[in-house]
Amino acid sequence: MKHNVIIIGAGVSGMTAALYLKRAGIDCIIIEKEMPGGQINYTSTIENYPGFANILGSDLAINIYKQITDIGVEVLFDEVIEVKNEKNKKIVITKNQKLETEYLIIATGRSPKNLNVKGEEKLKNKGISYCAICDGSLYKDKEVVVIGAGASSIKESLYLSNICKKVTILNRRDEFRKTEDTKELTDQKNIEIKYNSEVKEFVGEKKLEEINLKNGEKLKPDGCFIFIGYNPKTNIFNNLNITNKEGYIEINKKFETKIENIYAIGDVTTHPIFQIITCMSDAITASFDIIEKINKDKSN
Amino acid sequence: MKHNVIIIGAGVSGMTAALYLKRAGIDCIIIEKEMPGGQINYTSTIENYPGFANILGSDLAINIYKQITDIGVEVLFDEVIEVKNEKNKKIVITKNQKLETEYLIIATGRSPKNLNVKGEEKLKNKGISYCAICDGSLYKDKEVVVIGAGASSIKESLYLSNICKKVTILNRRDEFRKTEDTKELTDQKNIEIKYNSEVKEFVGEKKLEEINLKNGEKLKPDGCFIFIGYNPKTNIFNNLNITNKEGYIEINKKFETKIENIYAIGDVTTHPIFQIITCMSDAITASFDIIEKINKDKSN
Repeated sequence: MKHNVIIIGAGVSGMTAALYLKRAGIDCIIIEKEMPGGQINYTSTIENYPGFANILGSDLAINIYKQITDIGVEVLFDEVIEVKNEKNKKIVITKNQKLETEYLIIATGRSPKNLNVKGEEKLKNKGISYCAICDGSLYKDKEVVVIGAGASSIKESLYLSNICKKVTILNRRDEFRKTEDTKELTDQKNIEIKYNSEVKEFVGEKKLEEINLKNGEKLKPDGCFIFIGYNPKTNIFNNLNITNKEGYIEINKKFETKIENIYAIGDVTTHPIFQIITCMSDAITASFDIIEKINKDKSN
Repeated sequence: MKHNVIIIGAGVSGMTAALYLKRAGIDCIIIEKEMPGGQINYTSTIENYPGFANILGSDLAINIYKQITDIGVEVLFDEVIEVKNEKNKKIVITKNQKLETEYLIIATGRSPKNLNVKGEEKLKNKGISYCAICDGSLYKDKEVVVIGAGASSIKESLYLSNICKKVTILNRRDEFRKTEDTKELTDQKNIEIKYNSEVKEFVGEKKLEEINLKNGEKLKPDGCFIFIGYNPKTNIFNNLNITNKEGYIEINKKFETKIENIYAIGDVTTHPIFQIITCMSDAITASFDIIEKINKDKSN
């Protein structure tokens, strides 16, 4: 069976695309290998999604999943292995079947890199966070530790220094890279930088209690932010050659990749902001373009 | 008193900007002359806002208003008369006071033009709508009338023809403008075009029952969509010379106008899509830029 639109990934971007496409009377199906919601399942309470003063990421995910399946969107729980771009159609091969579609939307997202040290997995969202803008205000007037010394870590530390009482940055080397502008960091009175500081273990049961460093030092912050980069989930699209060097998918203003009728939306793309609303906005822009193309085709 | 950021307009764009700015520890104030929520107060049930299967526009407005005032955002109910761009500051003059700010965000929105015929005001959202993407699916497999013959009316009619059983377009003249591509319209089997058809009156008490035309014809559709254009609310900014010919504010990728530190977001701008989520996304992009600038300034 050939679909109008296949969406890979049931995160907030993919589900929003389905919401708009289905409501416009267009046949679409989402393929998801894990649970619906994607990355928001790994955030603690969300306080910056307009309309909900606070909501658990997993609850927002379920709300949207119910919203789209109630209007008839089909979600296929399966894993995509490969996508082939053929003339006038795209072939999506999953572990269990082979599907055909006219339009493809890639919404596979990205995941933050883990430090991979003891205690990290257990204390995620229990004191360990990967997003300052999402979780920073949970630590208003409190003390936090930031792990990472790249550009995004610097930017997020400045953001946190505006909210938190104290921000301690752990740099595992003895200096920042020469390419990083650290003047702003060192000018902030409530930012301390610890060099040659690498985490050995996160300690705590129900919440983060202590961070043990390899040099023997022990820190007791209220929270800890890990900013050591992300992995865009694009390995399965390598054959399409649509990503940049870092693995993010390059798109135009309408979120179409360089391959006609293949779109990419949300965290997997090269867009500059990674927030729930901005990802949903990508989805709407791409969907509008597809809706217009399909309506045009129908009348021909 | 000088503010960091003044936001003009407490629609979804303005309130989302305040949410992000305040959570980043930045002082901001919203000025609103009517009720919070702006245009969404005039839509019927919203079914395409992810997270709520359906919610009244006014309820979503109240939710967001409560969300931002609970975290300490001040909303000043007053009417802005004029904005002056001075060196290093912007002056905002309202009916009752004069405020100073470093950054200004314009989020005044736009309103759909009314036909201004009898019954229209009373039957708004009771059968009369101004947004196909918002309200179209309320008329799935039903019959609707579309009023208007411009480009947006054609586009919205095609959208509706995908959902509704029948779409009847009323064109008050005897043909479409030569510049409009109407081939797609005439190719759709479920679209009928009535020329020389102008509305005299909308009839109904609790919901739209009948549309009476000036030529004596009476129509009994399930719903009616009016697409005769919009008025962006930018008169008070005429002195700043930041709008295009149609009155929409021109912005760059970061939603900054050609005047440094004056931003515009949401429906008042030249962006191509007018949806709640896309307006909120504008707000977040602009806020991020302002947050970065302010954090940079602070460290100098």
